[in-house]
Amino acid sequence: MQARYRLTIRCPDQVGIVAAVADFLARHGASIVEANHHTDLEEGWFFMRHEISDIQLDSAAFQAAFAQLAERFQMRWRWHEIQQRQRVALLASKEPHCLLDVLHRWQCEDLPCDIPCVIANHEAMKQYADWFGVPFHFVDFNHQSSTEAFAEIAALLKQYEIDTVVLARFMRIFPSDFCQQYRHRMINIHHSFLPSFVGAKPYHQAYERGVKLIGATCHYVTEDLDEGPIIEQDVVRISHADSLADMVRKGKDCERRALAAGLRMHLQDRVLVHGHKTIVFA
Amino acid sequence: MQARYRLTIRCPDQVGIVAAVADFLARHGASIVEANHHTDLEEGWFFMRHEISDIQLDSAAFQAAFAQLAERFQMRWRWHEIQQRQRVALLASKEPHCLLDVLHRWQCEDLPCDIPCVIANHEAMKQYADWFGVPFHFVDFNHQSSTEAFAEIAALLKQYEIDTVVLARFMRIFPSDFCQQYRHRMINIHHSFLPSFVGAKPYHQAYERGVKLIGATCHYVTEDLDEGPIIEQDVVRISHADSLADMVRKGKDCERRALAAGLRMHLQDRVLVHGHKTIVFA
Amino acid sequence: MQARYRLTIRCPDQVGIVAAVADFLARHGASIVEANHHTDLEEGWFFMRHEISDIQLDSAAFQAAFAQLAERFQMRWRWHEIQQRQRVALLASKEPHCLLDVLHRWQCEDLPCDIPCVIANHEAMKQYADWFGVPFHFVDFNHQSSTEAFAEIAALLKQYEIDTVVLARFMRIFPSDFCQQYRHRMINIHHSFLPSFVGAKPYHQAYERGVKLIGATCHYVTEDLDEGPIIEQDVVRISHADSLADMVRKGKDCERRALAAGLRMHLQDRVLVHGHKTIVFA
Amino acid sequence: MQARYRLTIRCPDQVGIVAAVADFLARHGASIVEANHHTDLEEGWFFMRHEISDIQLDSAAFQAAFAQLAERFQMRWRWHEIQQRQRVALLASKEPHCLLDVLHRWQCEDLPCDIPCVIANHEAMKQYADWFGVPFHFVDFNHQSSTEAFAEIAALLKQYEIDTVVLARFMRIFPSDFCQQYRHRMINIHHSFLPSFVGAKPYHQAYERGVKLIGATCHYVTEDLDEGPIIEQDVVRISHADSLADMVRKGKDCERRALAAGLRMHLQDRVLVHGHKTIVFA
Repeated sequence: MQARYRLTIRCPDQVGIVAAVADFLARHGASIVEANHHTDLEEGWFFMRHEISDIQLDSAAFQAAFAQLAERFQMRWRWHEIQQRQRVALLASKEPHCLLDVLHRWQCEDLPCDIPCVIANHEAMKQYADWFGVPFHFVDFNHQSSTEAFAEIAALLKQYEIDTVVLARFMRIFPSDFCQQYRHRMINIHHSFLPSFVGAKPYHQAYERGVKLIGATCHYVTEDLDEGPIIEQDVVRISHADSLADMVRKGKDCERRALAAGLRMHLQDRVLVHGHKTIVFA
Repeated sequence: MQARYRLTIRCPDQVGIVAAVADFLARHGASIVEANHHTDLEEGWFFMRHEISDIQLDSAAFQAAFAQLAERFQMRWRWHEIQQRQRVALLASKEPHCLLDVLHRWQCEDLPCDIPCVIANHEAMKQYADWFGVPFHFVDFNHQSSTEAFAEIAALLKQYEIDTVVLARFMRIFPSDFCQQYRHRMINIHHSFLPSFVGAKPYHQAYERGVKLIGATCHYVTEDLDEGPIIEQDVVRISHADSLADMVRKGKDCERRALAAGLRMHLQDRVLVHGHKTIVFA
Repeated sequence: MQARYRLTIRCPDQVGIVAAVADFLARHGASIVEANHHTDLEEGWFFMRHEISDIQLDSAAFQAAFAQLAERFQMRWRWHEIQQRQRVALLASKEPHCLLDVLHRWQCEDLPCDIPCVIANHEAMKQYADWFGVPFHFVDFNHQSSTEAFAEIAALLKQYEIDTVVLARFMRIFPSDFCQQYRHRMINIHHSFLPSFVGAKPYHQAYERGVKLIGATCHYVTEDLDEGPIIEQDVVRISHADSLADMVRKGKDCERRALAAGLRMHLQDRVLVHGHKTIVFA
Repeated sequence: MQARYRLTIRCPDQVGIVAAVADFLARHGASIVEANHHTDLEEGWFFMRHEISDIQLDSAAFQAAFAQLAERFQMRWRWHEIQQRQRVALLASKEPHCLLDVLHRWQCEDLPCDIPCVIANHEAMKQYADWFGVPFHFVDFNHQSSTEAFAEIAALLKQYEIDTVVLARFMRIFPSDFCQQYRHRMINIHHSFLPSFVGAKPYHQAYERGVKLIGATCHYVTEDLDEGPIIEQDVVRISHADSLADMVRKGKDCERRALAAGLRMHLQDRVLVHGHKTIVFA
C-alpha cells in the first residue's frame, strides 16, 4: 500500500486559504482523495481536512515546507501519516459490552488503530483482553488512593506510548491535570443523551422521568464532567413496557454504536475541536 | 358504522381483574377488537385499555352495571363512545407549522376529533384557520393583562365545549389553575428533547452545546413548566454544518411528527397517566 | 425464582375467547404479568400471549385442563415454562460478527436461552466458541456432498436436543425437508432490507443501485429462499461517500441489531406466525 | 443581500483540479463559503461543489473565463446565481399531503424556489393552490388522450418557464421524450423504499409481504419507471397492529419528509448525477 496522509487545518477565515493549500499540494504532485471544508460564519473560522496520496515529499520535508504557508494564515494544523496508526488504550470497569465491541471491531480491521493494552479497575475484564491477545493491567482503586491509582494509569499510558485513551465505561472521574494532558485525546462514552441526565445512574433518571427515547453520548473528556465536546450521539426508542433492566439493555446497544462511530471518526482525524464544539467531517 | 367503545382502567394490581372484566364484557356480548394491558410491577398498579364493538348495553346501562365491578377492584375507569369525537381547540402564536399540520391531518380524517376553533395571540394565524373553515379567535396579550387574556381563552374553551386543548407552539405560560382544570387534557409540543434544554430558546441552547441530535417532546401541561408527563418524543440528526436556522427548520419536522403522534394517541384514549409518567398503548 | 409461564394462542376470532381464557386463569389463581392480543379483522383470526406467574397447576395438569377449553375455540396453543430455556444452536460461516454478538448477549444474560453448540463450515469460527466455552463442530462442505454435510448438521442438532437454529451468517442453502423440520424454529439474518436485494451479494446490489439506506432482515427460514416470515428489520443511512466496504461495515451493525432483536422476541415466545406474516408482541 | 453563486463540476479525476479551481477563484477574489468534493475511485471521476460570495466577476465574465479552465480538465460544469431562484411546477393527482407540504415549506421560505403554478389531473387540488395564491391548472386525462394531456402539461411548463418539475404524488406515467427533456430536472416521490415494491399499490404489497419498516423514495424520473437515480429515502417502523390504512397514514409522513429533503438538495444544486446514481453533498 502506498503512503497516504491526512492534513487537518483550523484558522481564521480569509480569502485564498483553499487556493493556497490546493496550490501547495498540486505543486508537490499530491492527489487529493477526499477533502472537507467548513466555515463557521459566525465565528469567522475555517476548518479543512484533506486525505492525500502520491505526494512527492516525505513527511519531514512536507512539514518544513508547509510551515511557512501555515504561518501566513495563522493555521493550527496537523499532518498525519495514515500508516502510522494511533496507539489506543482501552479503560474499562465492570461492564464489558463497549470493551468487547471495540476489541472486535479492531480485530476485524474496522477500526484503524493499534490497541497495545487494556486497563481496568476490575479483574473480570481480563478475560476479554486475553481473548484478543492484548496485554491487561489491573489498577486497584480500593487498596490505594485515587491519586496513586491514576498515577499508575498515567505510567502505563506513557510506557505504551498511547495516543488516544478510550473510556469504555470506565467509571472513575479523572483528575484535572490528567484531562488536560490528554485534551482532545481521551474519549468517553456517557450512557445518556447529554445534556440530559448528567452524572451517575442516567438510566435510573430516564426511567424516573418517563422519557420515550434514551441515548448515549461519545465525547472528549474535559475537567467539567459530562461537559466535554460531543463527537457523536445515538438514541433508541423505549416505552412504558420497558423496565429499568430493559432500558439498560437497549442503552448498551446505543453506547456501543455511539462509541464505535465517534472513535472511528477520531482515528481518521475527522474530528476538529473548536471551543466546546466539534466539527466532524463524516 | 356500528357503535364502538373504549374502556380504560387503572387500579391496584391483583389476581382476577382481567377475568372479571373479560367475563363482564362477554356476558354482555361485547366483541373485543383490541386489548392492551400493562402491569407496573414496582408500583403494583394495573392498566388496561379495551376497544369494543357489538355490546348489548347502551352507555348509561353499561356505566351503571360496570360501576359495581369497578368498585370491587378500586378502579379509576372511563367509558368512551368512539362516535362521540373529542372537541379540540388549537392554540398558536407565531409559528404556523404545527397548527397547519394538525389542521391538515384533521381534514384528511387522520385525526379522529372535531376542531371547533383556533385561538391565537397573533393575527397572522387567522389565514390558516380560514383555509380549513374553522372559526378563529384572536386573544390580545399586549393590550390587556395576562390574567384577562387567559380568562378570555377560558371563556372560549367553555363556549366551544372543548375537551382537549392543543398548544401548537403557543408561547405563553398558563396559570396554575388553568393547568389544573385541563389536567391531562392540555397537550404541549416543546421544541427540545426534554429534559434537555427546558425553557425558551431550546434551539439556541442546542446550538451552543454542540449536540448531534435535536428533538421535540409532546407532553401534558402541568404547573411545573416543561415537567409534565411525556407522551411522545422524536429526534433528528444534525451536524456542525447546520446553522441555527437549519436546526430550527429540521426541528420543525420533529415537532410536527411528535405532536401529531402524541395527539393521535391521546384522542384514541391510548394514553394513561400515572404519577408523572404515561402508559401509551401504541 | 418462582415458576413463570407463557401461553400463546391462535384461533378463529369469536366473542368470549378472552373471557374464557381469563376466567380459566383466574380460577386457578394465575397472576397475569403481561398480556397481548391481536385481532386480524380481515382474516378473522385472533392471537394472544400471556405471561403468567403463581398458577396453582403444574404444567401437566394445566395442559390437561386447558385442552378442553382450547378445543371449544379451535385453538392452536402452546404452554411454555419460562424456566425451561430453549436450546439454541448457532451456525456460522466466515463472518464472525453475528456469532460473537449473540454469544456475548447470551453470556450477559440478555438472551434467555442455552447455547449448547456452535456449528460452522469454516474452522476460523472455533476461536469464538472457545472463548465462551461452547462446544464447536466443524462441518465440511468441501470434501463431502452437501447432502452429507446437512445430514451431519441434522445429527448434531438432534444430539444436542436443539429447539431453535440460528443462522448467524451461515451461507449455505438448506434443503427443503430441513426447513420443514425446523419450520418456525430456524432463524436467518439476511444482509438486506428484504424484499430488496434477495440472493447473494446484497451489498453489491445496493451499491450498484445507489440506495440511500441499507438494511438487514431477520426471518424464519422457509423453502422459498429469502421469502420466509419477517420477524425484524433494521436500516442504516449511507451516502455516496460510502464505499462498498463502508456499506458492509455499516450493514454489519444492522445485522447484529436485527438478529438480536428478532431472536430475543422468538425466545420469549413473542412471535406468532400466521401464513407468511408474523405477529410480534414486542 | 450580496450576490452568491454555486459552481458544480464533474470531470475525470486527475491531480491539480482542486488547485486549478481554487486558484482561479482566489485570483478573482472569491470567498468560498462551502466546498464539497467527492472522488469516485472506482470510476476515476471527480465531483465538486462550491458555494461562493464576493467574486469580482459578473456571471458572463465568469463563464467566459472559466470555460478555458473547464476545457483543460474536460469538465461538465454549471454556474448558478443563487438569487436566480429555480422555477418549480408542482404536479399532483388526488392525494394532497405532498402538495400541501411543499407549498407550506415554500411559503415559510424553507425551500429556495419560485412556484409559479400547480398542475393536477383532479380538480380537488385547486383549493390548495388557491390557499397559497398559486395559479392552478387542471389537465383532463379522461376526456382527451394521454398524449394530448401531456402536450398540455408541456405547454404549461414552457409558458411558465419551469426549471424543475415536482411530481407530488402525480399518478400518471410520463412519456419517454418528456422524461428526456426534463432529464435530472423532474423529481418524483415513490411511496415505497425502492427497489422494494415497484409499480402501483406499494403499500398493499408491503402489507402482504409483512415487512416491519415501510419507506419512501425521492428520485429523478427516467424512462425506466421507478428506476431513476435516487436522491433521498426515508423509512418508518410498522407492526402487525398496523392496518393497511395505518401504513398509508404513516407512509405519508415518510413521503413528505423524503420529498422535501430531496427537493431541497436539488434546489441548492447539491445533487450531481453520475450514471444512475447520485452524489448528494448534504
